[in-house]
Amino acid sequence: MVKVVKFGGSSVADGKQFEKVAAIIREEEARRLIVVSAPGKRFAEDIKTTDLLIHLADAAAEKKDYDAELQQVIERYTAIVESLSLPSQLLAELKAQLISLIETYQEDHPRLYDALMASGENENAKLMAAYLQQLGEEAYYVSPEEAGMVVTDDPGNARILPESYEKIAKLRERSGRLVIPGFFGVSKTGHIVTFPRGGSDITGSIIGAGAEVDLYENFTDVDSIYSVNPSLVEKPHEMEELTYREMRELAYAGFSVFHDEALHPVVKKKIPVCIKNTNHPQAAGTYIVDEREQRGLPVIGIASDKGFISINVRKYLMNKEVGFGRHLLHILAEEGISFEHTPSGIDNMSIIVREEYLNEEAEKKILERIQKELDVEEVHVERELAMVMVVGEGMAKTVGVAAKATTALAEAGVNIKMINQGSSEVSMMFGVNASEADLAVTSLYNACFAKAKA
Amino acid sequence: MVKVVKFGGSSVADGKQFEKVAAIIREEEARRLIVVSAPGKRFAEDIKTTDLLIHLADAAAEKKDYDAELQQVIERYTAIVESLSLPSQLLAELKAQLISLIETYQEDHPRLYDALMASGENENAKLMAAYLQQLGEEAYYVSPEEAGMVVTDDPGNARILPESYEKIAKLRERSGRLVIPGFFGVSKTGHIVTFPRGGSDITGSIIGAGAEVDLYENFTDVDSIYSVNPSLVEKPHEMEELTYREMRELAYAGFSVFHDEALHPVVKKKIPVCIKNTNHPQAAGTYIVDEREQRGLPVIGIASDKGFISINVRKYLMNKEVGFGRHLLHILAEEGISFEHTPSGIDNMSIIVREEYLNEEAEKKILERIQKELDVEEVHVERELAMVMVVGEGMAKTVGVAAKATTALAEAGVNIKMINQGSSEVSMMFGVNASEADLAVTSLYNACFAKAKA
Repeated sequence: MVKVVKFGGSSVADGKQFEKVAAIIREEEARRLIVVSAPGKRFAEDIKTTDLLIHLADAAAEKKDYDAELQQVIERYTAIVESLSLPSQLLAELKAQLISLIETYQEDHPRLYDALMASGENENAKLMAAYLQQLGEEAYYVSPEEAGMVVTDDPGNARILPESYEKIAKLRERSGRLVIPGFFGVSKTGHIVTFPRGGSDITGSIIGAGAEVDLYENFTDVDSIYSVNPSLVEKPHEMEELTYREMRELAYAGFSVFHDEALHPVVKKKIPVCIKNTNHPQAAGTYIVDEREQRGLPVIGIASDKGFISINVRKYLMNKEVGFGRHLLHILAEEGISFEHTPSGIDNMSIIVREEYLNEEAEKKILERIQKELDVEEVHVERELAMVMVVGEGMAKTVGVAAKATTALAEAGVNIKMINQGSSEVSMMFGVNASEADLAVTSLYNACFAKAKA
Repeated sequence: MVKVVKFGGSSVADGKQFEKVAAIIREEEARRLIVVSAPGKRFAEDIKTTDLLIHLADAAAEKKDYDAELQQVIERYTAIVESLSLPSQLLAELKAQLISLIETYQEDHPRLYDALMASGENENAKLMAAYLQQLGEEAYYVSPEEAGMVVTDDPGNARILPESYEKIAKLRERSGRLVIPGFFGVSKTGHIVTFPRGGSDITGSIIGAGAEVDLYENFTDVDSIYSVNPSLVEKPHEMEELTYREMRELAYAGFSVFHDEALHPVVKKKIPVCIKNTNHPQAAGTYIVDEREQRGLPVIGIASDKGFISINVRKYLMNKEVGFGRHLLHILAEEGISFEHTPSGIDNMSIIVREEYLNEEAEKKILERIQKELDVEEVHVERELAMVMVVGEGMAKTVGVAAKATTALAEAGVNIKMINQGSSEVSMMFGVNASEADLAVTSLYNACFAKAKA
């Protein structure tokens, strides 16, 4: 059995966290492929190493004296090295490496930022490998280049190239534990290129898919994924297991535990993922799997996201007008507006757009075009909407979930502006006023989970 | 004030019905524009005049001896003429007219059918005008040509040409009552061309819109529109008033009182429509209006229609794949399949198609194309679905309608497969198994209307 084990920023923030991580790794022979983030925050007001590296890049890019910024970065690693009694030689190498990167890329800003930001993970991986060796483990630092992570040459937005997977597969054959920095790959021209949001999770997912591991363990600082935002509900229900699809629906509506695109490589290979807590590894964690046995509650989680606009169009006999919908979507495409959903009735169609994608000027133009080109009876815009998602694979097969959910909303006095539940879907979506979104979430949570807790 | 008054086939089926109709017309000075259908059924096993005319056309088209068929048609009118003591000269003219049409069009079958079928209305209008004159009314038969109803030259599927309305407007200025046959117009080349389904209703609507009448009274054989199919519920709630939009939603889901396309001309002019009963004219009837005051129940009617198929498509990260939905709809368009709805979630999209539009071969091809061109994770077809519509303008502003409806379905044990309620919509659509459709309708009816009756 082989596992890829990824540790997030807070899990590798200082020497004490390194000790926990090492203990977790050493606990199982299978934890052979290790992906580490850059040192994260040690306390609420702390600054992440990646942000210190951005400050360093800012100074270097402006050709200012960057000594203070460089020193701040080095101090973060110094604290780790000293706490673990690692050879100070590592720090000298680290400093030389950072200066070398600045000199190489000072004139090419996108690459400068990418190279320096990637150093956060890269240097931390070296320290982790050194620490495991010091503990007597057979451990190796493996650079993304050595691992075979060849990516597109698009700074800040790298995509893995399909050819990488063949090379990554060979990592399985190597002996010892391999420590790989997250967050970046290497382009065909040999440059460091970072991934978009969710970077280290992406690395873990790619390594997991390439090496066809049995499990992708993702260590962070929570015991499990909660069924609802814990800032809204006290001690919410913890999920033991959820499917990729459930995770996707929740991620869409604002659950931030996992970036859904990051998981794509393992989803395609149906490799299970486990979210665990570095600070409490004995907790069972939450498994994200392709299919799960239906047991317990049909609903697994409730999420909400604000900031939506609905463009509502009405025209008598719309559904008999061939090509109406396509024309409407075409107008949006031509105006460069991406949309979220298009709930449609017989003679009406709504287009749900995220507020940030529709400025006043674009809105005006779109409304004019709809009126003129489609000769509609009515077109109007509804603002400050929230989407509330009730998610669970069991819902499609359980009678009464919709009744329970809508009754909870009615009793709380929430006006449901939209409902969308498609055939064989794993979620039910409610559109409500943004001002009522939190109330909607807590009412739904209490209705769906109250009994489970008692 | 001017009204257009249309009488359906059962309202003008025999002399006794003619007497009722004349009394209704004479009751109000405003009932000046009168549209009549062909004589309909007088009893359940009776044959409509239009069907007798089709038999006549069949025989004439096949160059058989059509004497018996002609005689059957003439007998229907003879019964009316004799019952009302109208001059028998009318029957001689009628017979001569039918023979003349057959001789003119015997080689041109589409026109032969159109001309003979249209005679049903045309000859009945002449009789109605004669009867009104006999009663001392200033009444005139006005042919569609004289009225100005110029239509496209598409036999069986005529569409009114916009230029007609100007001429029709002048009907208002004429004195006396004008009796116009429903169901057909005249092409620019002078041929009789019939309207599609809902023909006489279309004539009434066009005359009403052209003459900008104050009200379009549509006399049929029911006191009012019921809130639910009366074969499912005993003595259902009667609607006093509903909006065009509500009517459209109900018509879509199988309410057959009015053909929704027929209403389009009056809808555009916001002319109110009233459904009344020729056999019980003192009943208030049901008004169909552009806007109504919200009073009483938020739900106005419940309808259902069976025979739907859902094609369900799933793909991880679908909503981030630009153009996915458009590509999917493009495949359907290329295969010539029109669809009803496309409820969509984050990573899935369903396409609801009427069963009659999707044969086995087309289905196989579409599924293959979706799988191949869109590289989806899953595509499957769900059959024997029914759409149940809960309709009412008041729903969007009333908290708890969804709860009431879904609770009723849950209590009846109906599994909801789809829910669609869009922002500012006047309806909520539930997808259920066809076998549970009637149960769904009665449960919803009882939940939404029970209190209103008590």
